[in-house]
This record gives sequence, structure tokens and C-alpha cells, in this order.
Amino acid sequence: MTTEQLTDQIKKKQSFLCIGLDVDLSKIPQHLLTEDDPIFEFNKAIIDATHHLCVSYKPNTAFYEAYGIKGWQALEKTINYLNEKHPEIFTIADAKRGDIGNTSSMYAKAFFEDLVFDSVTVAPYMGKDSVEPFLAFKNKHTILLALTSNEGAFDFQTKLVDGKEMYKQVLETSKTWENAENLMYVVGATKAEYLADIRQIVPESFLLVPGVGAQGGNLQDVCKYGMSKNVGLLINSSRGIIYASNQEDFAEAAAKKAQNMQQEMAVILKNAN
Amino acid sequence: MTTEQLTDQIKKKQSFLCIGLDVDLSKIPQHLLTEDDPIFEFNKAIIDATHHLCVSYKPNTAFYEAYGIKGWQALEKTINYLNEKHPEIFTIADAKRGDIGNTSSMYAKAFFEDLVFDSVTVAPYMGKDSVEPFLAFKNKHTILLALTSNEGAFDFQTKLVDGKEMYKQVLETSKTWENAENLMYVVGATKAEYLADIRQIVPESFLLVPGVGAQGGNLQDVCKYGMSKNVGLLINSSRGIIYASNQEDFAEAAAKKAQNMQQEMAVILKNAN
Repeated sequence: MTTEQLTDQIKKKQSFLCIGLDVDLSKIPQHLLTEDDPIFEFNKAIIDATHHLCVSYKPNTAFYEAYGIKGWQALEKTINYLNEKHPEIFTIADAKRGDIGNTSSMYAKAFFEDLVFDSVTVAPYMGKDSVEPFLAFKNKHTILLALTSNEGAFDFQTKLVDGKEMYKQVLETSKTWENAENLMYVVGATKAEYLADIRQIVPESFLLVPGVGAQGGNLQDVCKYGMSKNVGLLINSSRGIIYASNQEDFAEAAAKKAQNMQQEMAVILKNAN
Repeated sequence: MTTEQLTDQIKKKQSFLCIGLDVDLSKIPQHLLTEDDPIFEFNKAIIDATHHLCVSYKPNTAFYEAYGIKGWQALEKTINYLNEKHPEIFTIADAKRGDIGNTSSMYAKAFFEDLVFDSVTVAPYMGKDSVEPFLAFKNKHTILLALTSNEGAFDFQTKLVDGKEMYKQVLETSKTWENAENLMYVVGATKAEYLADIRQIVPESFLLVPGVGAQGGNLQDVCKYGMSKNVGLLINSSRGIIYASNQEDFAEAAAKKAQNMQQEMAVILKNAN
């Protein structure tokens, strides 16, 4: 998928919502546990109920790997379902991978070819040759961790390197890499005030913004500081939407939460014009 | 496994060799491709031929994920085979994971409980709360990326932060984390001269050292600068051993390469006493 197609979808749906499919079997409705594949059944119901309200789904691979082969199968079924039923949706494998060159190529193959995702999140610590193998894929997107939403972001990401915070060094350096136009960045909503500075460095890039909702980030602030002229934001909410109810009405409850966010986004988009 | 058990094994086998099981179907002997599970058959043959010459095996998860469900199954069979047949071997899931706290817990569950590895490699970029969930597991080890063997290590890891290189900040900061005694570190053999400084910060910790062989690192130099009084080194070789031959004799050829390294290590250990 191209970024233009993603922007078109945002304008059409009046939404820049990404729903995180972080399925924890201890949190989903108990009646699903008797199904053959409770993880996929949960995802399918959430997708069926919310696909018109969001532009992206983001399964975090940790939640699938924790269930071994069955988890990996559920992930495969989920991405296949999305690609078949809703090919307009931008799919993100939230995997936070990164390794030496030939190994990163194998990860890229895993997420772009075996599981056919549009994008994957990647950690920057190992530098250029650990990221470029992902960037080599045409119309695929590499979402680099810049400033994450957790407390530990202050351990290294905000430390000054040559008078400039590490996450800014990551942003600036990454712009020099081959096929840098395929980069997007993770910037946590819990650090919305940093977004103005970030937009000075990457004015047009899409930013994937976790941390609205359960982690306390604020949508209005994120948009105030982070919106580009082509929107350029994907706001992720996981637990706040998918665990709105753990009863039989879980999918409807999730849709209601997603609709609240979509409506708030529609107002923001209208005011931005 | 405890580090004492690992050290005992090193002394008994006179080896601190770790063999990287990075299986690429385009590089293994072609006659294996007709097997039901060529990846596992390849690993099994390598393990059968080399287990007395090394103390550790390290599958890199990228090579398994690239083959989807079949790859994940091969990884599961490999770790189960190791735990059943060679429980004395120290097993490393080279996964380079790391995410916000509740998500890192899921990764820890994936590699310590679902697949029963002794250790997992973890990236430090997201800081304390992304690593501590791994450290919480007793007698399991978290191998934190400090200074990697690739060229991209110079992009961020060696940059000066408060007058000190980022990788040293990672080493120092990580020592303050809860259950820090469960930490080991990745330090590339291609940067052997840095090991003396690293030993000032972490004098006793085990270091996993990739980059000897295919990437050009030198075993003598690594030991000169990096060996602690309890050895404290695991030297990884992947391609240099497992792809010594791509004919029917591949396992014997791998054993010969492993034996060369083991014998070199035995001499080093003898001279160190």
C-alpha cells in the first residue's frame, strides 16, 4: 500500500484510528475459549465490528508468540482475513525487530512475504544496515521506534548526544538511509509536547502514536503538535477498545469505543481544514 | 540453568563455543529438502555431531519466522530436542525483542515458558521497563545488546552521551535494574579492542560474542581483552560452522570446524590458568 492510499482512506473514513489487536486469553470473553481458535475468533469479531471506523490494525506479535504455534497460526489467519476482506486497511506487524543485515532480510521476508503485512515496527539500536533490508521492499513501510510511550524511554532515547536527544539523532540519521521514503516512526502519545520538535525533523512522515487511552495520552494534544498537512498520524488504541467489555457484547462495546474516537477525529479533521 | 552450571560445562568440555543455528533453506544440503521438516533435520544432524564440542546453541528466530508456521514448528522441535537430549547445553533464543512492560512479559513467556530456552537476546532502546519483565524469571538469562558486530553499531551505540559512549551507558544503567544478576551482554568480536573497557564496567558478566569467523572477528583478541576469571565468554559462530559443507558430509564438516575452535579454546583456557 502507498502512503497516498492510506491518506485517501483516512479522508474517506474521517478516521486515523489504528486498533491494536493484542489478544490476551485471560482478558477475552470466556465463552470464546471453547472455540477452536479463540484468538482468531476474537480478532474476527473485532474486525467485523470496527473496520469502517479505523484505517489500520496492529497485532503486536508478542501476544501471538506467547501462545506458540497456535498463536502464530492465529496471527496468520488474522492477516489473511484482513487482506481478503478489507484490503484497503493498512496492516502493521508490531514486532520491534532488528538484527544484522542478512538476518533483518529474513525478518522482512517473514512480515512482508510470508505474512503479508503492509508494515513492520523496527528498533533502531543496531543502525543503518539493520534497517535498510526492510526499506528495500517497495510499497512496504518500516516504522522505526523513535520516542516510545513507556517510562523507559527516558533511559536512553531522551539522553543528549552531541547536544541533541538520541531520538532526534535517530530521526535525522534515518533520513539519510536508502529508501528512507519508506520510513514511518513510532512516537508515544504520552510525550505529545515533543511532537512539535519531531515535526521540524520529519514534517511529512507518518507517525504511529501509541499510548492514547490506557497509557494516558491525549488525542487533542497529539493532533495539535503532530498533525501534518496530509494528516500523517495513526493513533493506536489497543486495550481501551478491544477490552471495552468481556461479555458477549464485546464486539459492539469495542465498536462503540472506536466510534467515539472516530467521531472525535472527524471533528479534528474538519477543524484542520 | 545457573551461570555456575554454564561455567562447569565450559571447564568440562574445555570449550566456550556457541553454535548459531541460522538455517537458510537455500544454503543447506539439497538432499534434506525432501524431508518433512528439513530445518529440524538439519539442526538435529548438526547437534548430534557437535554437542560435545560446544556449550551452547543459538537459533536466531528470524530464520524460523521467515518460514512461517513451519519455521516456528522447526524451532519448537529444535529446542525440545536440545532440552531432552542435551539438558546441560545453554540455549539462547536470539530474538532481539523488547517492548513496553506488559508486552515484554508476553515475549518472556514465549521464550522462557512456551519454548523453554535458558536465555533470550533483548534490545535496550526502550529502557528499564522493557527489560525487567525478562529479568524476573529465575535461572533464566537476558542477553542485552550492548555493542553489536555490524557496521551500523557506529550509528548510535558508539555515540557519546554525557561524554561516554551509548553502549557504556547501556551497560552501566542496566546494572541498576532489578534482578540485574540475570543479565548477560552481546558484544561483537569485530570490536575486540572495546572489550577491555567493557570489562571495567561488567567484570564478571557473561558476554555473548558474535562475529568470529564470517564477520572477521579474531578469537585470540576477544579472549585477550574479554576473558573474566570465570571465563565469562560465549563465542558464537554460525555460518562458519554450519555451512562448512553443503554436501552429504555437512554434519561431519561442521564438527571438524567446531573441533578446530574447541581445540583453540582449550589452549587458551590452559594458558589462562
